[in-house]
Amino acid sequence: MIGDTIAAISTPPGEGAIGIVRLSGPEAIVITEKIFRAAKNKDWSRQNFKLVYGYIYSPETKNVIDEVLVGIMRAPYSYTKEDVVEINCHGGALPLRKILELVLNLGARLAEPGEFTKRAFLNGRLDLIQAESIIDIIRASTDDAMRLAVGQLSGGLSDKITAIQQQLLQITALIEANIDFPEEDVDEYNLTDIKLQVEQIMQEIKKLLENAETGKIYREGLRTVIIGKPNVGKSSLLNVLLKENRAIVTDIPGTTRDLIEEVINIGGIPLKIIDTAGIRETEDVIEKIGVQKTRESIKAADFIIMVFDALDGINEIDNEIIKLVQPKKGVKVLNKIDLQEQENPSLKEQLKIILPDWPLVDISALEERNIEKLEQEIVNMVTRGQVIPGDGIMVSNVRHKNQLVKALQHLTDVRDAIEQGMSLDLIAVDIRGAWEAVSEINGTAVTEHIVDKIFADFCIGK
Amino acid sequence: MIGDTIAAISTPPGEGAIGIVRLSGPEAIVITEKIFRAAKNKDWSRQNFKLVYGYIYSPETKNVIDEVLVGIMRAPYSYTKEDVVEINCHGGALPLRKILELVLNLGARLAEPGEFTKRAFLNGRLDLIQAESIIDIIRASTDDAMRLAVGQLSGGLSDKITAIQQQLLQITALIEANIDFPEEDVDEYNLTDIKLQVEQIMQEIKKLLENAETGKIYREGLRTVIIGKPNVGKSSLLNVLLKENRAIVTDIPGTTRDLIEEVINIGGIPLKIIDTAGIRETEDVIEKIGVQKTRESIKAADFIIMVFDALDGINEIDNEIIKLVQPKKGVKVLNKIDLQEQENPSLKEQLKIILPDWPLVDISALEERNIEKLEQEIVNMVTRGQVIPGDGIMVSNVRHKNQLVKALQHLTDVRDAIEQGMSLDLIAVDIRGAWEAVSEINGTAVTEHIVDKIFADFCIGK
Repeated sequence: MIGDTIAAISTPPGEGAIGIVRLSGPEAIVITEKIFRAAKNKDWSRQNFKLVYGYIYSPETKNVIDEVLVGIMRAPYSYTKEDVVEINCHGGALPLRKILELVLNLGARLAEPGEFTKRAFLNGRLDLIQAESIIDIIRASTDDAMRLAVGQLSGGLSDKITAIQQQLLQITALIEANIDFPEEDVDEYNLTDIKLQVEQIMQEIKKLLENAETGKIYREGLRTVIIGKPNVGKSSLLNVLLKENRAIVTDIPGTTRDLIEEVINIGGIPLKIIDTAGIRETEDVIEKIGVQKTRESIKAADFIIMVFDALDGINEIDNEIIKLVQPKKGVKVLNKIDLQEQENPSLKEQLKIILPDWPLVDISALEERNIEKLEQEIVNMVTRGQVIPGDGIMVSNVRHKNQLVKALQHLTDVRDAIEQGMSLDLIAVDIRGAWEAVSEINGTAVTEHIVDKIFADFCIGK
Repeated sequence: MIGDTIAAISTPPGEGAIGIVRLSGPEAIVITEKIFRAAKNKDWSRQNFKLVYGYIYSPETKNVIDEVLVGIMRAPYSYTKEDVVEINCHGGALPLRKILELVLNLGARLAEPGEFTKRAFLNGRLDLIQAESIIDIIRASTDDAMRLAVGQLSGGLSDKITAIQQQLLQITALIEANIDFPEEDVDEYNLTDIKLQVEQIMQEIKKLLENAETGKIYREGLRTVIIGKPNVGKSSLLNVLLKENRAIVTDIPGTTRDLIEEVINIGGIPLKIIDTAGIRETEDVIEKIGVQKTRESIKAADFIIMVFDALDGINEIDNEIIKLVQPKKGVKVLNKIDLQEQENPSLKEQLKIILPDWPLVDISALEERNIEKLEQEIVNMVTRGQVIPGDGIMVSNVRHKNQLVKALQHLTDVRDAIEQGMSLDLIAVDIRGAWEAVSEINGTAVTEHIVDKIFADFCIGK
């Protein structure tokens, strides 16, 4: 348990019907007793998981500050495993601020961002994977992103990581038994067994890593540029994609998130459209197309939608753009097929050769033809057929992925060492390294610095 | 009781730790039962004022949507006097929207703005004064504005209005007794008595009206323009006033409130500074000063702070501005007294003659001299010495004020009619009119149209 009592406003800033000031810590209930008068239930402070109606008043002036509902959740069954009080007041900036001031004056400390969840982790109610999934739930912009996060909060991924930890510990035990009794020769069978077990764990980690890139995309979205020469129909295409598929975009001042972007939900994948407004549609396009801004947009993108013109064919501007987007992943879109009198086979042939790894889709943004096909191609291209498993368990967090890669490297070293007949002591070091890498994922072995960094990205009051 | 069950997101939009979906109505608990699985407390749906931890899941896919705390408040002790369920989930746009969608799919109807509070009113838990005070609490930008609103929520003003209603009913009874028994002559004493009682009520209403203008200013703020010729120090003055006194300003898209304004808290009065950025500080100031934008700003203002220059004295531009601000209330500020080598008595004499009803304060915005004195003059000017009573009971709502003015007019007519010996029937009509005017304040007699109009200004979920 951590010593002091923390408090914060836990609802979003702004105007709403209900706002919540949350307290957690040994003094949470005592502080509330000093400022809350229950309308009827005088015995409230000795109860648990109870909602109590009454008034918050200033202990100095005795003036009523607001009419509230107070929820009391006692340790150890609360969110933080500490005593928690939630004061539900009217959702204005002033009632919330006044009540927060009162509790701070009575000895609570203003909570840091994520500190409630950090306590839930430090007090053992959640592991680090679950704690991190909470901010993913809050920030989810598509149903799939949320399903992934809820799956992780439910402990699915945690269970897999714990299982790997257990296996690594068993191997350590096996090795140590051999180190401790050096007079007995190292049994060949034992080493083969260890190698087999290591390879099995490596398989499991590889399986987790296999679709981690897709998981990351579901979680964080795919930074996407729609690019093409002037008047090729970029805006029309964007509008058609937006029409049905606009995802939830929130703009919260003071958070570390990106600036507002248009987010489109394509088959559960949040496509964040990077503004290419910098590419002015001037007469002098060829010169303008090369400007720094375009290069930057493309550089920042994970994915490119390049639009071609079914009437105009491929010209010099297209070729300039192709040079820029070449190293990226993307799809080719042939727009304005509604204006074609007949198909143009030679143009199609040309387009097959250009950016050959990118699929090609004929569309008409104007008549909204083949838009679903385009969406399907984007999904295929991005997920490479990998879908979120039914149980929602998938690595989606880059931090987790990096730790798994580290663990895999240590295990590869173990395997090589066994093959080369290295000493057990050296093998033990790498097994330990793998265990540490995995343990940083769920937080069983993690430095304070990493924990602080993870929770600093949370919102206040969580 | 109203038939159907309503639901809405009751926390402000945006990203926060906790979000709330609220349901009210006969189906609130039944609907929640279909989507909520308690972690332990299986008996939750039969309990009251209980917080229950568990999971919201989709009844179709059985997938978990979010981890939640559910609060159940049964009729008739809830906010609306109906069964109320509050689902506290993670405060992201998507979990809130998903849960709201689930309950709407199960038969709840999306609540209109203010509909929860409207039900509290229609079901008799709050009168109309109290209901209106709730939105005032949420929107309060200074402590005094909030104290006024909380005083009204506590029923102080309601009690006064009810007392006036009672007195009017007694008079009606007295008159009707005389009408019903016409054979008995109307007792002179009775009529004198009625007149005395009417005059007493008139006094009470006048007392309530006396500081209603001040109450309105505390509640709504004072639209204020800081004006003066170029380089006179308007921005410096604004910055000095802002530094210590910035009030809470919230900017909620989609509400009917004004655009963002700088709000300064001067002695508890919210001063809303109207942007005069339209008055460009160009060379050609004299011409520019007359532009429509300036006129509009001044026209929209309740109060003017006109800044003069202690070095330059009064010039043509000042005179142009003076013509425009003449009909308004305001204060004169002589700035830059730090730059004066000595006082300029003739300038002071001139300033006394200009806008003679406006107090004059010498200041230095640069050295922050006499700023408090200026603030005090503004408060004096605006409140004319009227302060919020200790019990916080003051008419602050223009609707209430207008109804009191109507009632007062009817009572004046009653007094005149008695003096002129008019028939009791005619007198009874005006007594009834006064009663109706007063009854529209607390909602004992009010048309559906007015009720709808009042609650339409509320936020969603309240």
